[in-house]
Amino acid sequence: MERLIEHLRKLPGVGTKSAQRFAFHILRSSEGDAAALADAILTLKKHLRLCSICNNITDTDPCAYCTSATRNSRLICIVEEPTNISGIEKTRSFHGLYHVLHGTLSPVNGVGPEQLRLRNLWPRLAETDELILATSPTVEGEATARYLLDEIRKTHAGLRVTRIATGVPAGSDIEYADEVTMTRALEGRRDL
Amino acid sequence: MERLIEHLRKLPGVGTKSAQRFAFHILRSSEGDAAALADAILTLKKHLRLCSICNNITDTDPCAYCTSATRNSRLICIVEEPTNISGIEKTRSFHGLYHVLHGTLSPVNGVGPEQLRLRNLWPRLAETDELILATSPTVEGEATARYLLDEIRKTHAGLRVTRIATGVPAGSDIEYADEVTMTRALEGRRDL
Repeated sequence: MERLIEHLRKLPGVGTKSAQRFAFHILRSSEGDAAALADAILTLKKHLRLCSICNNITDTDPCAYCTSATRNSRLICIVEEPTNISGIEKTRSFHGLYHVLHGTLSPVNGVGPEQLRLRNLWPRLAETDELILATSPTVEGEATARYLLDEIRKTHAGLRVTRIATGVPAGSDIEYADEVTMTRALEGRRDL
Repeated sequence: MERLIEHLRKLPGVGTKSAQRFAFHILRSSEGDAAALADAILTLKKHLRLCSICNNITDTDPCAYCTSATRNSRLICIVEEPTNISGIEKTRSFHGLYHVLHGTLSPVNGVGPEQLRLRNLWPRLAETDELILATSPTVEGEATARYLLDEIRKTHAGLRVTRIATGVPAGSDIEYADEVTMTRALEGRRDL
């Protein structure tokens, strides 16, 4: 029981209390249910892996995006996590490929460039026209974008590198925009 | 009493219930307090007015922004409400003048171009290098920006007209950006 709680506690956002609740739930559930849960965990690990090109979670390698014939392979969007891909896909306005970092630079949490999945990014740049840095406009996301820009400029000075817009969110009154967002919205103003 | 409630109800966000509560509060307060409130209302109306140039609320006409010697008078930022000015001033990154519309186009609420304070905007354009449309990225704010752009283009085809950036707010994870905001963040991406 304690071993299970210990393992469940490693799940994101799960503390001792929640882990205990999960463990008791599993204890009370039927043997079939418990076996099905265990099997689902094993199957997931067996069938899902990271795409060797873009690091997206996938059941085929390379992933469906990287092998798509209809997407623009010369446009790459860099994101922090695999979940960010679905957010961008929902816009239906991006038709390039992705590169998933699986994290952001965060010295406080011991995440340096070595912890990001960058090794397979560099070889892709030679075949790329534009690289969109779509990390979040947070301290970590901005630091990561800055680091990537600096690294890219060392070897691919002419590559077009862009950053997603920081600004007032759509549908929101500027009255509620904080100073930093408002500053960025003014700086990033576009000619009409 | 009912006449007071009727008048208090005209305040923004005040319904019958709140108006009654206010009225009872005034009824219970001392004569001095009630007189002070009435006086404050009258004094406000006597001393504050709208700047004849930019429509900002001011005690001098023209207002302190419009008469400032250190601000760039050839750059005008158009905002919906006087309160938006303080939000932009806090950024310390804007040093031009303002023009307050006192509203946004909203056909549903019967607000057409005639209801916006535009008449004193047109004469200003001849002396302007750039006009920043800083209405909110809401349906009404966007419609107002579109209307202004169309009107300006009729008479001042060469004037630089810009729109503040819509995008992911600073400090926010892109995970929480809605589709429209994310689409605009991608469209509005900037070259680094």
